[in-house]
Amino acid sequence: MLGVCYYPEHWPESWWADDARRMRDLGLRTVRIGEFAWSRIEPEPGRIEIDWLRRAVDTLGAAGLEVVLSTPTATPPKWLMDAHPEIAPVDEDGTVRGFGSRRHYTFSSSVFASEAARIAEVVARSLGRHPAVVGWQIDNEYGCHNTALSYGDTDLRAYREWLRRRYQSTEQMNEAWGNAFWSMELRHFNEAALPVRAVTETNPAARLDYWRFSSDQIVAFNRMQADIIRAHSPGRFVTHNFMGLFLDFDHFACGADLDLATWDSYPIGFTERFPFSEEERNAYAMTGHPDMAPFHHDLYRAVGRGRWWVMEQQAGPVNWAPWNPVPRPGQIRLFTWEAIAHGAERVMYFRWRQAPFGQEQMHSGLNLPDNSGLSPGGSEAAEVARELDAIGPLPAPTLAPVALVIDYEASWITRIQPQGATFNYGELAYRWYEAARRLGLDIDIVPPGHDLSAYRLVLAPSLPYVSEVALNAFKKTTAEIVFGPRSGSKTRHFSIPENLPPGPLAELIPFRVVEVASLRPGLTEEVKGRISGQVRRWREHIACEKEFAEAAFADGMPAMIRSGRFSYLAGWAEIDLISAVLVAAAERARVATTSLPASLRLRRRGNLKFAFNYGSEPVELTFPPDAAVLGSSTVPPSGVTIWRED
Amino acid sequence: MLGVCYYPEHWPESWWADDARRMRDLGLRTVRIGEFAWSRIEPEPGRIEIDWLRRAVDTLGAAGLEVVLSTPTATPPKWLMDAHPEIAPVDEDGTVRGFGSRRHYTFSSSVFASEAARIAEVVARSLGRHPAVVGWQIDNEYGCHNTALSYGDTDLRAYREWLRRRYQSTEQMNEAWGNAFWSMELRHFNEAALPVRAVTETNPAARLDYWRFSSDQIVAFNRMQADIIRAHSPGRFVTHNFMGLFLDFDHFACGADLDLATWDSYPIGFTERFPFSEEERNAYAMTGHPDMAPFHHDLYRAVGRGRWWVMEQQAGPVNWAPWNPVPRPGQIRLFTWEAIAHGAERVMYFRWRQAPFGQEQMHSGLNLPDNSGLSPGGSEAAEVARELDAIGPLPAPTLAPVALVIDYEASWITRIQPQGATFNYGELAYRWYEAARRLGLDIDIVPPGHDLSAYRLVLAPSLPYVSEVALNAFKKTTAEIVFGPRSGSKTRHFSIPENLPPGPLAELIPFRVVEVASLRPGLTEEVKGRISGQVRRWREHIACEKEFAEAAFADGMPAMIRSGRFSYLAGWAEIDLISAVLVAAAERARVATTSLPASLRLRRRGNLKFAFNYGSEPVELTFPPDAAVLGSSTVPPSGVTIWRED
Amino acid sequence: MLGVCYYPEHWPESWWADDARRMRDLGLRTVRIGEFAWSRIEPEPGRIEIDWLRRAVDTLGAAGLEVVLSTPTATPPKWLMDAHPEIAPVDEDGTVRGFGSRRHYTFSSSVFASEAARIAEVVARSLGRHPAVVGWQIDNEYGCHNTALSYGDTDLRAYREWLRRRYQSTEQMNEAWGNAFWSMELRHFNEAALPVRAVTETNPAARLDYWRFSSDQIVAFNRMQADIIRAHSPGRFVTHNFMGLFLDFDHFACGADLDLATWDSYPIGFTERFPFSEEERNAYAMTGHPDMAPFHHDLYRAVGRGRWWVMEQQAGPVNWAPWNPVPRPGQIRLFTWEAIAHGAERVMYFRWRQAPFGQEQMHSGLNLPDNSGLSPGGSEAAEVARELDAIGPLPAPTLAPVALVIDYEASWITRIQPQGATFNYGELAYRWYEAARRLGLDIDIVPPGHDLSAYRLVLAPSLPYVSEVALNAFKKTTAEIVFGPRSGSKTRHFSIPENLPPGPLAELIPFRVVEVASLRPGLTEEVKGRISGQVRRWREHIACEKEFAEAAFADGMPAMIRSGRFSYLAGWAEIDLISAVLVAAAERARVATTSLPASLRLRRRGNLKFAFNYGSEPVELTFPPDAAVLGSSTVPPSGVTIWRED
Repeated sequence: MLGVCYYPEHWPESWWADDARRMRDLGLRTVRIGEFAWSRIEPEPGRIEIDWLRRAVDTLGAAGLEVVLSTPTATPPKWLMDAHPEIAPVDEDGTVRGFGSRRHYTFSSSVFASEAARIAEVVARSLGRHPAVVGWQIDNEYGCHNTALSYGDTDLRAYREWLRRRYQSTEQMNEAWGNAFWSMELRHFNEAALPVRAVTETNPAARLDYWRFSSDQIVAFNRMQADIIRAHSPGRFVTHNFMGLFLDFDHFACGADLDLATWDSYPIGFTERFPFSEEERNAYAMTGHPDMAPFHHDLYRAVGRGRWWVMEQQAGPVNWAPWNPVPRPGQIRLFTWEAIAHGAERVMYFRWRQAPFGQEQMHSGLNLPDNSGLSPGGSEAAEVARELDAIGPLPAPTLAPVALVIDYEASWITRIQPQGATFNYGELAYRWYEAARRLGLDIDIVPPGHDLSAYRLVLAPSLPYVSEVALNAFKKTTAEIVFGPRSGSKTRHFSIPENLPPGPLAELIPFRVVEVASLRPGLTEEVKGRISGQVRRWREHIACEKEFAEAAFADGMPAMIRSGRFSYLAGWAEIDLISAVLVAAAERARVATTSLPASLRLRRRGNLKFAFNYGSEPVELTFPPDAAVLGSSTVPPSGVTIWRED
Repeated sequence: MLGVCYYPEHWPESWWADDARRMRDLGLRTVRIGEFAWSRIEPEPGRIEIDWLRRAVDTLGAAGLEVVLSTPTATPPKWLMDAHPEIAPVDEDGTVRGFGSRRHYTFSSSVFASEAARIAEVVARSLGRHPAVVGWQIDNEYGCHNTALSYGDTDLRAYREWLRRRYQSTEQMNEAWGNAFWSMELRHFNEAALPVRAVTETNPAARLDYWRFSSDQIVAFNRMQADIIRAHSPGRFVTHNFMGLFLDFDHFACGADLDLATWDSYPIGFTERFPFSEEERNAYAMTGHPDMAPFHHDLYRAVGRGRWWVMEQQAGPVNWAPWNPVPRPGQIRLFTWEAIAHGAERVMYFRWRQAPFGQEQMHSGLNLPDNSGLSPGGSEAAEVARELDAIGPLPAPTLAPVALVIDYEASWITRIQPQGATFNYGELAYRWYEAARRLGLDIDIVPPGHDLSAYRLVLAPSLPYVSEVALNAFKKTTAEIVFGPRSGSKTRHFSIPENLPPGPLAELIPFRVVEVASLRPGLTEEVKGRISGQVRRWREHIACEKEFAEAAFADGMPAMIRSGRFSYLAGWAEIDLISAVLVAAAERARVATTSLPASLRLRRRGNLKFAFNYGSEPVELTFPPDAAVLGSSTVPPSGVTIWRED
Repeated sequence: MLGVCYYPEHWPESWWADDARRMRDLGLRTVRIGEFAWSRIEPEPGRIEIDWLRRAVDTLGAAGLEVVLSTPTATPPKWLMDAHPEIAPVDEDGTVRGFGSRRHYTFSSSVFASEAARIAEVVARSLGRHPAVVGWQIDNEYGCHNTALSYGDTDLRAYREWLRRRYQSTEQMNEAWGNAFWSMELRHFNEAALPVRAVTETNPAARLDYWRFSSDQIVAFNRMQADIIRAHSPGRFVTHNFMGLFLDFDHFACGADLDLATWDSYPIGFTERFPFSEEERNAYAMTGHPDMAPFHHDLYRAVGRGRWWVMEQQAGPVNWAPWNPVPRPGQIRLFTWEAIAHGAERVMYFRWRQAPFGQEQMHSGLNLPDNSGLSPGGSEAAEVARELDAIGPLPAPTLAPVALVIDYEASWITRIQPQGATFNYGELAYRWYEAARRLGLDIDIVPPGHDLSAYRLVLAPSLPYVSEVALNAFKKTTAEIVFGPRSGSKTRHFSIPENLPPGPLAELIPFRVVEVASLRPGLTEEVKGRISGQVRRWREHIACEKEFAEAAFADGMPAMIRSGRFSYLAGWAEIDLISAVLVAAAERARVATTSLPASLRLRRRGNLKFAFNYGSEPVELTFPPDAAVLGSSTVPPSGVTIWRED
């Protein structure tokens, strides 16, 4: 179940065979290669040199390794950029983002699209039927380094085409966007402007459409490459390695064209970047926050419709966070087992050997850069390989009892119109996930509109736009459903619904949001009633019949409303309040909860139960002594325990 | 005395008559319309569609409402921007600020000036004699979104012309600016550069002139429209709605061409933006700081030479501050009464109905966006209307005993050359105002040079450049005058005066500022003497005869100097020290002071006395029981009490 | 030993003679002039007006003053910029940095180089043999205002030429830079791009080369002017006035072409800018940090190979720091004596008279701007002049026992690749210097590779790239040597050494750095062993034989390693830990240390010993009563004591 990322172009060819043998000896089965090698595959325009790559695949295959090949489209070479400068993306301020690193292309460039198609076809046609090749990665980390959206002339032209297709007439677009406001009415689609670099805020409806357009383009670019690969590499899977903590385009839509999803797991760096408190960042500096990797595991399981890998697993310190500590001993092993517990088909370490040169020279790998042997993380990988071997086949993952609805548009809408500077959708969803996991719950992440009939409890931390298909899914399940603030607050065209928020959800719970208050960091609102706790950052002023109010703010207005199996939480709840809400809802849904220590997490895979300790003290578990599969009932810091529950 | 802002172009025409009727029923008398409707008035270049606007005026007039019409020049339509891209303003970094929101024009564009004249004439000629039209608003919130200054080629050309007119010869300009410094001498006016985007700081004299040039342009643009309106709409007043917290151009100069001044009052949002402490921001998050609206009321009374309105009164949460809470119950009523207490002729709420679309969809109005009825703020407006009706005609406002000198150039000079990062003129002036108001004083704001003979106490928190006319006004009055730091520290051409600061003020108080110290936030200087307290941020080292020193710093140097009725405070005083200075000066001036609770404010209008409670606890007042006009001697939080003082 | 900076072009010619006489009377001997006077020397292209400057030199010379003349190349006039816009530098974001202040040229511009050569020759030829002229300053503060690096088309062309010369072939450059990474391989030198404005981080090897290229250009520009001056002004020294706190180009390389080095000493402003704690900034707001001036004195003594001046000595408040306090009484005198104690040949005050106009009008001088007499700083300068006169000739400076290795490339490397956001080379070196000075040690700063045989203790706070010549210098001396973190961690081409860090230093101490951890501000690591203390910000995971570990982290890994006279400290030590390391090393080196109060510093010059009190309390010294040369054994705040040690 383990693998690694490898860059044959970084090392003398004479090392390859030995590297391959050592990979096998370590217990690795799969190797990803080729995703940044365009300048080696095509050193001059049109001069293709694919033999070295074939020899690399041959060598790996000969050692018994499966190969995942990549298209190298994330790094167009300099000669291509010089020939077509319009390929370069443009940032929000209008600055061209040029050659020198990676992802220096805009998805709007038709020149680049055809060049990408050409090089993808070259690689797929050349090696697509090689017996060692089992699958494909398209490009690398779409959107990384803020590249999902680009704001240049090329983009504007593509956007106008997209608008023309979407709206047919400017009258419809003016109406949908509310362009009567501030004289924004347009007469022709070629009058449409980029929604940036204006004097102040541009129309939120236009901005949302620009985001949708940008997301659609990534999906189309990905599908284009997937089609080429499938044509030339039958029987192999096609995937993409998504980047964590990243909501800039619709991963579900992109995943629909893939055979499985993969993601790149750097929990420690992500913990530095996520808006945690300083206390949390300090506590988890060397382990990552306990829900960071799991949240993404559960997300990409959804994106891959059940099938997913970790394509890049942090194997030691990284180079890109503001601070980059050495992971605590045991933590690389923990990360690996945790991915497996959540159902990963493969955990691929990044990377085989630390590169002594280039931008990532401070990024560790399984081997030290001096080729003297395994890094500390490499030794932990070897340990997992041995443990996996000892344990044998694992049971298949099963559905969780709880579904958490994640919506990419929710992130776009609330970033376009935060209304309160500290309203952050990604953080809100994460905190709900964390609260549920601290209650010992397994979670499936689902997109809005996904069939919810298999779940007992559904959480929608915030779903501003509730489409008809999403509404129907909520109606059709018998699950207990908890909605968070701003759910139903916007129409498809970024307007306030005619019946006020929660718009279509009023069909499920009869109330209206009359006013909303965003609260500066110094302000807190107390909630009391059947549940109690604190609200910060955001609260809503709600009009409803008294009978539906489960809890109220200090001024008597409803804070939590419930009608049958539908609840609505009218504010940004602190974790204790979320927890109280979830406990009550889980009880109604007859889902058992248990209050875990803050740094411990559980996860079930079939009849196996896993415990992971992110804290600095050992934790005691209770299970029959003979049930232990790995470890014992005492879970040390960074420790893993697995036991059988029958 | 109440009115509202209305956007007929946002609603079906079939709603208009009902809206008008409901406005009347609510007690509103005046309606402002049209200020962003260019794309509806001229949907294609040259195709004028004014009939809908006439029907709107007809409908409002038929309901008995007075109409304030606006010129729509704040939102030139896209077709105009595409035809003349040079209309767009350019920011300090050189980025063009394009179409997509509002105020996307530079005052330097002669093309835009003639287009603005054309559309203003169209509207004024078409509706200027309509019987329902009582007045005009020109454009909307000049300078808002940082648009008073623009830095493009168009601006540079206009600036060079302005310089040529001002200086006649480059020799005079070189001399005035001190261009011998750093080889900045110019040979021709067309060598003059924009004072931005240089390697480091540009010449402060040039920067001050650029600011004056920019302010002059706004004044000229405003006067041009005023002339057109007056030609076509005889007998109607002409005004502009100024934006609060805004010192980027000279409002007094602009006001000289208006019949009355109006301003847009959003005290809660402004409180979030003003450099208050976090404690103050938390305490007044839902009420606004107690001096925020009053300061502006008193300022715009001066700008309108006695005549002023609130053109936009916050009626609930807004959308543009970092955090936007719901105002505390009663606060919209309080704001309205407070404006009236300070002498407003009209208080116009913004806006009739919350728009469900566009950039301001989260900005509340008197009605909810679903048209289901009044918002909470709407209900408070109705309450004020009833109260006004019950009370009947109010006495005319009278002059205050205290004048506070506000100077726009003082703001420009100290921003161009702060010398200490925390020296902020707007904040300083506000803190002096606050200190005086916490002593129960009514205040008239005046520009430098204004006749001061009617006042007993004059405060000049800082007046770096003291013109001859300003000096004469100080000399001619018999009032007690207190000057704050940096007064008299600059000449007209941004030099240090030949006799050192306080320059011409040395004629009034004999001293010299030898050195100045800006103090980092960690540093405090104690002041002791006839008055005492603390200085932070700024202190001056002063040479003077001992007899003039009223108080000294710890090192013995003078902190407060006085010669007869002229005092000078040689530092940035904390509020307790300002208060001590004011109490002493008021005593000498025989103006009574009273120390109010921190969150209570008083204001007289004729023989009526008003109390406003911004705090969270009730406040007890003492007055004869039968003197009460509104409320009682207990003022609840967000409460208003009015009583008669004979 | 004292002098002053003077701007005859700022004052009426009728004042010059009186100014000169007053300078002499004050005790000044030397005057610098002319460094910004291009527009006066050449008011129109080609029209040279040098007579006024000759008369100024005549006047100063007639008063018995020595003149240092300057080339005015830091301020090209507007007519030159208009004729050749490509002279302007370009910032990292691509914005042209235009006319309006100073240093508005890029060193890459060949047009500017020839114009600079032309004007330098004009001045040198005209006045180079004037008997009053004793030396020359070239240009002014290279690199100030972030002008060492420029990123425009002109720069790109020059950079490509530099690369061509350095690498001969793109194959060698691709190999050196590791361009196989991310498809960065180039086919021609004219494909090389500026290492900025890419999507994310560019290649660190390319960035380091861009920095070297930029530094080389400054060195070449300086040498070009030095050659011209020497040709026309025989027997006069040539210098440049370097700016403090500035590591953007190699001052040692530039100093090699000068006869002596000078620097501009503004310790109070620098203290505001340096990354001190808020506590330190508050404590030393009015004195500057006790090591700020001394560190630079010792640095520029090295740059001038023993000969150095303070070219601009702060004489009162400055105008350019965020806050600019008035120096504490006595502090200007202290600064002057401290420079002398460290061996300055001249201390030149900036400036004779405060200018009432221009960008620096808030920058004090020896005289007030109103010409009424000396400023407080001016009076202190007069006091030093009298004291110097009374004391008579001072002994020659001698070598210190301790050498501190400062490397400009170390700063570039760690800024290009901080790996931890708080790793700041300049700060690290300063903290080591501070720790040594607080132990009473005199320090010589030296560049890597400098002959170390005369020293007993050598400190290298961090030396990432250890060249062969640097390694040999370490090997050849018998001194005790302490290396700090990251030493030996990079090759010349910014790669990890083949044998892992410390690369070539492993020859001196046998260990390997296996992993490195950067620590967020909340994290601390305890060090215990023969020395103990705390590490923050950075720690390394080291593999070595147990015998070499002098101290360990809590997890048992080595924190301090020693092999004979070579030690290595594996983290960013807090000052107590640095101190413990230094005490132990000094003891082995038989260098005496003494623990000074935090705000006191000592310095020897020949047989004289100086004490400087930066604290707010008097400090008692112990020395024989008859040894006192200046002051007494009680050193008051801002006081200086000198005594004889025989």
